[in-house]
Amino acid sequence: MSKKRKVNAAILIIGNEILSGRTQDKNVAFISNWLNLNCGISVQEVRIIPDVEKIIVKNIRLLSSKFDYVFTTGGIGPTHDDITAKSIAKAFKVNYGYHKEAYKILEDYYGKEKFNDGRKKMAKMPLNAKLIYNPSSAAPGFITKNVFSLPGVPSILNSMIENCKRYLVKGLKIHSKTINIFTVESNISKQLEIIQKKYKKFVDIGSYPFFRLGKVGVSVVSRSTSKKKLLNVNKNLMKVIRSKKIKILNI
Amino acid sequence: MSKKRKVNAAILIIGNEILSGRTQDKNVAFISNWLNLNCGISVQEVRIIPDVEKIIVKNIRLLSSKFDYVFTTGGIGPTHDDITAKSIAKAFKVNYGYHKEAYKILEDYYGKEKFNDGRKKMAKMPLNAKLIYNPSSAAPGFITKNVFSLPGVPSILNSMIENCKRYLVKGLKIHSKTINIFTVESNISKQLEIIQKKYKKFVDIGSYPFFRLGKVGVSVVSRSTSKKKLLNVNKNLMKVIRSKKIKILNI
Repeated sequence: MSKKRKVNAAILIIGNEILSGRTQDKNVAFISNWLNLNCGISVQEVRIIPDVEKIIVKNIRLLSSKFDYVFTTGGIGPTHDDITAKSIAKAFKVNYGYHKEAYKILEDYYGKEKFNDGRKKMAKMPLNAKLIYNPSSAAPGFITKNVFSLPGVPSILNSMIENCKRYLVKGLKIHSKTINIFTVESNISKQLEIIQKKYKKFVDIGSYPFFRLGKVGVSVVSRSTSKKKLLNVNKNLMKVIRSKKIKILNI
Repeated sequence: MSKKRKVNAAILIIGNEILSGRTQDKNVAFISNWLNLNCGISVQEVRIIPDVEKIIVKNIRLLSSKFDYVFTTGGIGPTHDDITAKSIAKAFKVNYGYHKEAYKILEDYYGKEKFNDGRKKMAKMPLNAKLIYNPSSAAPGFITKNVFSLPGVPSILNSMIENCKRYLVKGLKIHSKTINIFTVESNISKQLEIIQKKYKKFVDIGSYPFFRLGKVGVSVVSRSTSKKKLLNVNKNLMKVIRSKKIKILNI
């Protein structure tokens, strides 16, 4: 049996509409949560870039060599600004054209008469790509080397993500524990630092202020691949919280 | 009088909580919209990276040399995982320590007795930085060369952004026009491409599917620094929409 290791990924959001602020991205949080929860894969970098071929090519090459997996979103629809598939083919210097299986899926879905040029474009991709099936609107995503290309529309992307699973090597799951307390960060910062230093190699402790019920609070989030180490950190944190008589919102 | 030119920016989101999907980023859309609307500055790249000094340093150097401005969010609070200020000082090889004015602001705000080490940490930054005042919670942001550092909490960031304005050289405003129509993208993709090709150098046309009132629609968004060219594109688009008898949701 092979031992699991840490597996990482990057997300590349392709789309002027996200960069300009017109559209609020929701895919980063969704993909990142899904990867961690279902595959033990941890997202290490996200980039949002415009619909410009040269820039897409450069980023695909760089991220795919740097991370175990890359997930792209956006740019695989039927219009002129959908250039993700072509750019990825260029990045990897592989043939681009009508993908037989994708073409058949789309032709069956729309029917021969309604299968116009725009729709046909969605079957154009790296010829050697593996398909990611789309239960919402037929047009498949695709996998080229270690790059998974998904659409930008969140509801469609969400419906497709399970179909990525069988192509992903699972990594060590990152467990996380959140303690929400009513205090200010500066009240616990020294103690947090001491605990973090002690568990430096094993646990990441993050501290995030929140406002709830008209009160200021802090979420202390610990993350680790080791459940045991996480438990120990938690015990240490609870000691601090109790000794300072800090009110707990929830654990 | 100096002629306005195109001015661009990058956003660097620093924070494990965004990368892990725990927290939904809202700062990209806010900053990008604000920059464009108020300063004619266009965001060309966004990166989300973890709280790791080496990675922050590398990205700060790269983005600050590549873009007119860089906006960082996150990592300027009082806890151990807040390492943005120190990393930026390192990136630019400038002195890091207590910033006199920031120290005074924070000391006045908290009062000498409650001004503990955690809170003092928020006055530590590149010594030569210019401050971005914070009307919500006192702790200032700061400007190092062309890098503007803001907090991660959206409500606080939003309250501070106006204070960046006087340090920014304004660029050519990008005007935008959206037409929302009830059709599918593939029905207009050919015509959009023709119009986009004709106005290639001047107008960016984007096409984004939406679902509303139980119907599928498309938002056609045109963006340009030239109002006149935008108007011409719009006329062309309306011709296509009328000739195809497409129902308009709004313009």
